[in-house]
Amino acid sequence: MDLKTALSKLDTLEETMQAYRHAMGVLSLDGATAAPRRSALGRGKTFGVLGGVTYRLLVNDEVDEMLRTILDNRDGCTPAQFRRAELLREDYDDMTRIPMEEYVAYQTLVTEADAVWHEAKEKSDYPMFAPYLEKLMDCQRRFAAYKDDKKPAYDVMLDNYEKGASMTTLDPFFAMLREKLTPVIREIGHRPAPRTDFLHRVYPIELQRTFSLRLMDMLGIDRACCAIAETEHPFTDGYNKWDVRITTHYYERDVASSMYSVIHEGGHALYELGTGDELQFTCLGEGSTMGIHESQSRFYENIIGRSLPFCRALYPVMRETFPEQMSDVTAEELYAAVNKAEPSLIRTEADELTYAAHVMIRYEMEKLMMSGEAKVSELPGLWNSMYRKYLGVDVPCDREGILQDSHWSGGSFGYFPSYALGSAYGAQMLRAMEKDVDVWSHVEKGDLAPVTAWLREKIHRHGRMLTPAQLLENALGAPFDPSFYTDYLTKKFTELYHL
Amino acid sequence: MDLKTALSKLDTLEETMQAYRHAMGVLSLDGATAAPRRSALGRGKTFGVLGGVTYRLLVNDEVDEMLRTILDNRDGCTPAQFRRAELLREDYDDMTRIPMEEYVAYQTLVTEADAVWHEAKEKSDYPMFAPYLEKLMDCQRRFAAYKDDKKPAYDVMLDNYEKGASMTTLDPFFAMLREKLTPVIREIGHRPAPRTDFLHRVYPIELQRTFSLRLMDMLGIDRACCAIAETEHPFTDGYNKWDVRITTHYYERDVASSMYSVIHEGGHALYELGTGDELQFTCLGEGSTMGIHESQSRFYENIIGRSLPFCRALYPVMRETFPEQMSDVTAEELYAAVNKAEPSLIRTEADELTYAAHVMIRYEMEKLMMSGEAKVSELPGLWNSMYRKYLGVDVPCDREGILQDSHWSGGSFGYFPSYALGSAYGAQMLRAMEKDVDVWSHVEKGDLAPVTAWLREKIHRHGRMLTPAQLLENALGAPFDPSFYTDYLTKKFTELYHL
Repeated sequence: MDLKTALSKLDTLEETMQAYRHAMGVLSLDGATAAPRRSALGRGKTFGVLGGVTYRLLVNDEVDEMLRTILDNRDGCTPAQFRRAELLREDYDDMTRIPMEEYVAYQTLVTEADAVWHEAKEKSDYPMFAPYLEKLMDCQRRFAAYKDDKKPAYDVMLDNYEKGASMTTLDPFFAMLREKLTPVIREIGHRPAPRTDFLHRVYPIELQRTFSLRLMDMLGIDRACCAIAETEHPFTDGYNKWDVRITTHYYERDVASSMYSVIHEGGHALYELGTGDELQFTCLGEGSTMGIHESQSRFYENIIGRSLPFCRALYPVMRETFPEQMSDVTAEELYAAVNKAEPSLIRTEADELTYAAHVMIRYEMEKLMMSGEAKVSELPGLWNSMYRKYLGVDVPCDREGILQDSHWSGGSFGYFPSYALGSAYGAQMLRAMEKDVDVWSHVEKGDLAPVTAWLREKIHRHGRMLTPAQLLENALGAPFDPSFYTDYLTKKFTELYHL
Repeated sequence: MDLKTALSKLDTLEETMQAYRHAMGVLSLDGATAAPRRSALGRGKTFGVLGGVTYRLLVNDEVDEMLRTILDNRDGCTPAQFRRAELLREDYDDMTRIPMEEYVAYQTLVTEADAVWHEAKEKSDYPMFAPYLEKLMDCQRRFAAYKDDKKPAYDVMLDNYEKGASMTTLDPFFAMLREKLTPVIREIGHRPAPRTDFLHRVYPIELQRTFSLRLMDMLGIDRACCAIAETEHPFTDGYNKWDVRITTHYYERDVASSMYSVIHEGGHALYELGTGDELQFTCLGEGSTMGIHESQSRFYENIIGRSLPFCRALYPVMRETFPEQMSDVTAEELYAAVNKAEPSLIRTEADELTYAAHVMIRYEMEKLMMSGEAKVSELPGLWNSMYRKYLGVDVPCDREGILQDSHWSGGSFGYFPSYALGSAYGAQMLRAMEKDVDVWSHVEKGDLAPVTAWLREKIHRHGRMLTPAQLLENALGAPFDPSFYTDYLTKKFTELYHL
């Protein structure tokens, strides 16, 4: 195949693949937001058909030859063409490495495991889920070996979610979090808690919906390109930079829940919305790894969204939207309330400080699970003892313990560290950003444009054109150093709690 | 190709086609309900790709051979297999008859025409739209000739929407409507109008949303299989019998608008929800022609929904949902108000009686347009004079005249008669149903189950397995006779207005 033919085939393939990605994305979104309950059967059939088609679109000898042609002719390609071929080659290899019948069996297993997990969680019945967890771990270990049987399985998995991550890099990272943050968490347990009563007054859903739109406006999200919907669990998806969706979940008596979901998902959305025009409708037109994506969402959610200047900017908007509920509250009380730190059981509800400990525990668990050091039956005991040790809380039941997250039932092992990495990247980015931008004076005025412009320049606009390492180099201006993160948290919570 | 191979290929093709139909349906729905404004670009691209794929899936020599094999071997097939091949053959022929480049050019034309029509309607600027209308008419006349150049073009178009319909059958039908209904419409203009003030009080959207769900329950719609969303123009779509969607539009000061949209679309939904299990995920698992579909939606909307017994059943539900707005209203006043008959300008807002005249005018217009008897520049004048003649109203501007409907800008000519046919079928069905079921005593109790069971047995469950003619024979029990419709309307409005 000559290069010109190969490049033309690349364009056709990507155009087609992106259309399927869009269709399947919207089908999922519809399933989570609008579809009636019994629609699952039809959606499953449609996913089966479209999934099969996309598999065959990518995995065939012609594509193989096309990719080889491009990758062997770097000089004849634009950097974007070459990069697209590189990324498609990764997908290709990922998909062909696993024998088809194993992959199909795995898909069936995941579907079953997910259903069983839901029921097991509801009943707090770990033994019900355990055999599925065991099988999922076996599959994933086997898949990791297909990819690279010279590395420990868990290293392969970590690298899947965050290119370059391994136990060698993460062990010291989590050790540092443990060492620096555990004493702060302990100490805070002995201090008086801020008032949070007003966050749990009745906030009518209709008003919260209006408030979400105002939040999106404050974040500088162009609502002509980004819509919001409601789902059980908030998420973000983007089909191209002119069509991004975020979701949230409203609780009448917890205004902060949806508020920070919107800001978090809004951070993901700003990333997708900021990818370069020229990258759209190719595999380059989306965000990079999980860790980089979380660095953006958690930057907006915590570093900006839970800062005192932002709370000051938000305060009049909240007073206006919820005059009764906020009538006896100051901006400083709002700031203290949304930063209430408290060792707790559930990761997704954790504050910024203790969140890191939840992730650290999962990392330690996954290491033991993947090395085979722990038996599946021992996992709940291990989980509970780590929660006692690092967070000082007793886990009353597996539902609020090891069964709480959906990741493992979905076959995702090695995913959790990205959350902590993303947070740590963000803290270091803030320091780099502060050298170029007078961050807090803008944020205090409710103007996030300079913050977003900086992130857009360093990260967003590049999509997947640059590697995660290049993006971090751009945005950190120095090698990654997690002490920025621990310093940031220590300083913030020392001040908040007068430690 | 042997029959066994052909039948297996039929299954695979249908499974695949249905998946694409589902995906494209949900993409459309998403575009109308949830997607951000600027998402149109990406959706257009995706439709382009998926549309091309589905075209090539159906239109190729292998499918041609497969269909021929099945259609030549009726005895070796089940009736359903044979019927599926028959229907696919119709689609195949429809798609192959038009040369590919003409079809593509037509798609572009429709997209442009639609945009121009929107603007022309807003500006009430018919000359702006006229050249597009001319081109659309030319295309459609040419397409009709490709299908059958021995018949008048308009007859081909009528047959496209309602199998078997032609000017020979419709001329006497519309002549009868004209003759019987015009005097009633005239007469009513001289009678005092019922009070309708309470329909235009403030009905908060949130309450109307709750009311929609109660209406769906009253209609016996299983909400586990049918969801409701909001769009500019209400519609129904179904992907299979376990996944049907209806939409509505809420106006704060017009409670009847959404109420009758929900009942109308609910009628379409009940049809789709009632198709046989064994027909699902094939082309048989949906409703039959436009006319049959409208017979169901308009049956629920008008014959049931605007009857006195139904208004009596609805009344307590409305009192409960809207206690203040309905505080000084009786069930009889509700009945009179939702049946207020008044010659008006806009078809979609017309009452049950004058609606038929709106459709009749469009039929007369389309005949003149397609025969070439009227020039495009003369159409607004013709339109206005017919409105004066048959409805006694002066059309103040083309926006409220010839530009009001979206059908022509979408290239649909010959579609309108289905609305009147559907209504007329429904009136005759009612008389057949009344022989088997004590309709009104059930309806007055708010129990539509016996009505729906009857329609399900005669029509719904058959999907597209039976021809429209067979379905009508089932449900009418006699040849179609539009005097049932004119008698029904005359009696109803004579009583209501004490003529």
